[in-house]
Amino acid sequence: MIAERINALREEMRKAGIDACLVPTNDFHGSEYVGDYFKCRRYLSGFTGSAGTLVVTADMAGLWTDGRYFLQAEEQLEGTGIDLYRMGQDGVPKVREFLADKLKEGQCLGFDGRTVAKAEAEELKKILEEKKVRIDFDHDLPGQVWTDRPSLSCEPVTLLDEIYTGKSRKAKLADVREKMEGKKADCFVLTSLDDIAWLLNIRGGDVECNPVVLSYVAVLREKVLLFANEKAFGEEVKAALAADGVRLLPYNSIYQWIRRIPVGRSVWLDGSRVNYAIVASIPKQVTVIDETNPTQLMKAVKNPVEVANIRKVHVKDGVAVTRFMYWLKQRVRAAKEAGVRQITDESGLALTEIGVAKRLEAFRAEQENYRGPSFETIAGFGPHGAVIHYSATPETDCGLCTDELLLVDSGGQYPEGTTDITRTFVLGEADEERRKYFTMVLRGNLNLAAARFLHGCCGLNLDYLCREPLWEAGLDYNHGTGHGVGCYLNVHEGPNGFRWKIVPERRDSAVFEAGMVTSDEPGFYLEGRFGIRHENLIVCCEGEKNEYGQFMYFDTLTMAPFDLDGIDASLMSERERRLLNEYHGKVYETIAPYLPEEERQWLKEATRAV
Amino acid sequence: MIAERINALREEMRKAGIDACLVPTNDFHGSEYVGDYFKCRRYLSGFTGSAGTLVVTADMAGLWTDGRYFLQAEEQLEGTGIDLYRMGQDGVPKVREFLADKLKEGQCLGFDGRTVAKAEAEELKKILEEKKVRIDFDHDLPGQVWTDRPSLSCEPVTLLDEIYTGKSRKAKLADVREKMEGKKADCFVLTSLDDIAWLLNIRGGDVECNPVVLSYVAVLREKVLLFANEKAFGEEVKAALAADGVRLLPYNSIYQWIRRIPVGRSVWLDGSRVNYAIVASIPKQVTVIDETNPTQLMKAVKNPVEVANIRKVHVKDGVAVTRFMYWLKQRVRAAKEAGVRQITDESGLALTEIGVAKRLEAFRAEQENYRGPSFETIAGFGPHGAVIHYSATPETDCGLCTDELLLVDSGGQYPEGTTDITRTFVLGEADEERRKYFTMVLRGNLNLAAARFLHGCCGLNLDYLCREPLWEAGLDYNHGTGHGVGCYLNVHEGPNGFRWKIVPERRDSAVFEAGMVTSDEPGFYLEGRFGIRHENLIVCCEGEKNEYGQFMYFDTLTMAPFDLDGIDASLMSERERRLLNEYHGKVYETIAPYLPEEERQWLKEATRAV
Repeated sequence: MIAERINALREEMRKAGIDACLVPTNDFHGSEYVGDYFKCRRYLSGFTGSAGTLVVTADMAGLWTDGRYFLQAEEQLEGTGIDLYRMGQDGVPKVREFLADKLKEGQCLGFDGRTVAKAEAEELKKILEEKKVRIDFDHDLPGQVWTDRPSLSCEPVTLLDEIYTGKSRKAKLADVREKMEGKKADCFVLTSLDDIAWLLNIRGGDVECNPVVLSYVAVLREKVLLFANEKAFGEEVKAALAADGVRLLPYNSIYQWIRRIPVGRSVWLDGSRVNYAIVASIPKQVTVIDETNPTQLMKAVKNPVEVANIRKVHVKDGVAVTRFMYWLKQRVRAAKEAGVRQITDESGLALTEIGVAKRLEAFRAEQENYRGPSFETIAGFGPHGAVIHYSATPETDCGLCTDELLLVDSGGQYPEGTTDITRTFVLGEADEERRKYFTMVLRGNLNLAAARFLHGCCGLNLDYLCREPLWEAGLDYNHGTGHGVGCYLNVHEGPNGFRWKIVPERRDSAVFEAGMVTSDEPGFYLEGRFGIRHENLIVCCEGEKNEYGQFMYFDTLTMAPFDLDGIDASLMSERERRLLNEYHGKVYETIAPYLPEEERQWLKEATRAV
Repeated sequence: MIAERINALREEMRKAGIDACLVPTNDFHGSEYVGDYFKCRRYLSGFTGSAGTLVVTADMAGLWTDGRYFLQAEEQLEGTGIDLYRMGQDGVPKVREFLADKLKEGQCLGFDGRTVAKAEAEELKKILEEKKVRIDFDHDLPGQVWTDRPSLSCEPVTLLDEIYTGKSRKAKLADVREKMEGKKADCFVLTSLDDIAWLLNIRGGDVECNPVVLSYVAVLREKVLLFANEKAFGEEVKAALAADGVRLLPYNSIYQWIRRIPVGRSVWLDGSRVNYAIVASIPKQVTVIDETNPTQLMKAVKNPVEVANIRKVHVKDGVAVTRFMYWLKQRVRAAKEAGVRQITDESGLALTEIGVAKRLEAFRAEQENYRGPSFETIAGFGPHGAVIHYSATPETDCGLCTDELLLVDSGGQYPEGTTDITRTFVLGEADEERRKYFTMVLRGNLNLAAARFLHGCCGLNLDYLCREPLWEAGLDYNHGTGHGVGCYLNVHEGPNGFRWKIVPERRDSAVFEAGMVTSDEPGFYLEGRFGIRHENLIVCCEGEKNEYGQFMYFDTLTMAPFDLDGIDASLMSERERRLLNEYHGKVYETIAPYLPEEERQWLKEATRAV
């Protein structure tokens, strides 16, 4: 089947005079997650991972993906005739290098220019033009092959009230226009979906777990053009947008509109986010200002109304996670009392990873205004906990047994905010080794959250705090320590984050400003054995301002116990124990009022001082 | 007198058709400290500070300097007619901005192109050319005015033996030539004096405290041109250099030589270090490769022979500092016993800042191979300790009294290495406030030195460790935490350092490599009251290499007690007490064998566990 699809693509390539076809994973907006319509790479290769690039030529087909997916890709590509290129391994060329090597003078590389960011396309162009290889970015060849392609998502758009956004659409547009003045820009083109939803105070459902609206925006001095599917917009939404000068135009018409920008005008866009087809459509005598979207920082710095709501949402979410933890611990107790290793639900059915994820979601669903998960829950039992992006499938789903660890990374969407929390649960008792690592990771989490620093610090300055307990022991975790989190938006957003090495293209090491919400999620993973991660969200706040400058600190938003069954308090410093006890005291105080008496009693014990 | 000199300069400016004359503090090599020949700015303005820029036009004269020197400059400029421009204060233009504003179309700015770095000159050029202001960089007008100018330093050059350098000149040149190959450079022009001394394994004395040789170097494929004053070179030195293909040419002839570089060749130079006159002399059809000197990193990464010698030198230097401390404490005791506040020397004369600095130098002079101080000693008593770059003069020198703090920052030059150490001594008893800050600063020093981290970390990642105790309390120190240190070379060198904010032009946040020597010197200063700084040198070492990467750590080189009279151990964590006790144990073990019995007894007590 896959071979047939690849051959069909080759046929289209032949007709269009294209010698190599590049099929990335992206949508037209550089989104982290994409809707079904955009899953061409998956359709053509059969590989279902969230990251990968397919390259097809007349005589080869190859899929490039990273370490997270080597095993999965190997299995899924077997028998398809598609070669696996393991990115980052010695001797494996980058896609760009491969193409530059493979294509000869006069040949042509084809890709859909809407699915490649300007910055990336220009690098490709540079390396290929040196070799006199042409680029054709006007054809959506995968789309021509994909006969039963799903249609573009068109979920209903809703307005997000000012009681949640804290700032009107008009005021946000005025801020953007002020920035445009500063850059002498006549027009600001915005294509990243979370920025658009934030700017226009609208929400949708066009990407799973991300309440965004498939659209493009052009902010002009006097009006705003919103390129989107009109069918998704009800009368009330249309009227509200129109009142602020927002005109609705067909989704795809942005390309024609761009081509007709009058000569002499200047357009501001962020080349790392905007797709190449948009940039290539800009007439020659229009000035392009390629700079970071001003909305990125505005969106990241939550306003006081948003922060107040986010605090509320973490109480609700904390109640759900705490009740889930109580329930889980009861199931473990039942198994222990029955003298069996297998943990079952109330009706005696084996509890599995998928089962607990559903149960956690059910606890969240009991909370007012719950709108769904903010990402696909990771529930990893034992060795699965060590697979950093694990997501249980019916094939991998496994039953939970006592005395092992269960890592659960999950989050919810509420109009008041977005949550993201990881807890590692001890299903009974943890041995000394597990407690040692569990405690190490927790110490890092607590120490980072307790940082006091001068304004001007970014994640690079503080990441060490979180890794220190592991690094001291010659250990590490191979992922960033934290990412920015949206407000009823994407669970991953920039420009704030915690990371010790600069990765320029990630742009996630901005100076911390009051109101930024960031995750604090160190981990430790032993392949084939178990994984540990402790994640809270923290909000940056202003502390004392004095002759030395403006001091800043973090306040922890997430409200749910860390599993004390995993802790060896003797491995913590006095200060670390105090930090843990203070946090647990706050959790009890905040969550207990919402729990039935029995659960409240249990929480008292689960948050006791160590 | 100053007014006369300024007027004489104006007369020369008039003759040369120059409307504004810029007189920086630099020599021709971008050195941090400069020889007497180069002190034109000082001669013309009377201002003796180590940083400042003089601008003279027909109707004004102004001196730009930074916060360290506001008071001093005010006093020294009084009555000279030179206005003080306080850099960094609101409303004070930068020199560049001032010139761009002051000079009109068709006017001319003059400066000696040898005293301004390429990068800086090009920024000046850019801003002035927009205004159609010409630049004349060919005249040394201050030199024409300065009638009794000292001649260029010409101290004897010595060879530094391979038992100290650990690597032959030939091998170093081969490394540089390999880098040149990589950049396709036909010629590498090196003008920074410490790089030249390192590369050629020579030492001199042309800058106070810096054992460098006034010279320029051009490394070619087959030979090396050394532009320097031949009189400084004895026969043995000449022969050794000649044997490795180093040809001696007159110091100033580099400019003619540069002008004759054949068309088509490529020249590698570091535009942040090389002066503008050199770059401007390069013929048009010669390619300039403007990149960091490869010698900078090579020099910073001390080889095993150097590290072994540096360890030895810190024993000698530690003995000197420890004996000084013993002597000082005895003098304090004598005053206490006599019931007087004033501290005196053995003959009953009042001890002053200058007096203790001399005494400390005398202890160093007793050590084998001592060659002199590595910088001018800072001995700041009481409030003077809070002046970060304090240097006692006969006018400020003050007598020491009991129960106050004395900050002493000093270092020595030895063929085996360069030292730099700060100790803050309690002259009797310290009150609770002083002990609180003294302990805070020490905790930072110890925590930074104890860092364990993955290779790839730079100063930005680790600086927080040192500031944490202060930042937690809403306090800070307004200087970097540490700088690289040369090996029998300049006490300040790049590219390693500790700093929390990136300052791009400083280029001191390189990734730590095994063999880099860096200072660890947090402080705390209360203006008008007292200053505290604790400085050790630490060398970066390789630790465990495992699946997570190469772990690194620091080993402390400096061997002298921290004054326990300033410490409140109850303010330290268990780990911090352990770190201090381990360090003090090592100090005792290392230093005691070199002390007379009485001093050894005292050291035992001075390094006791807390």
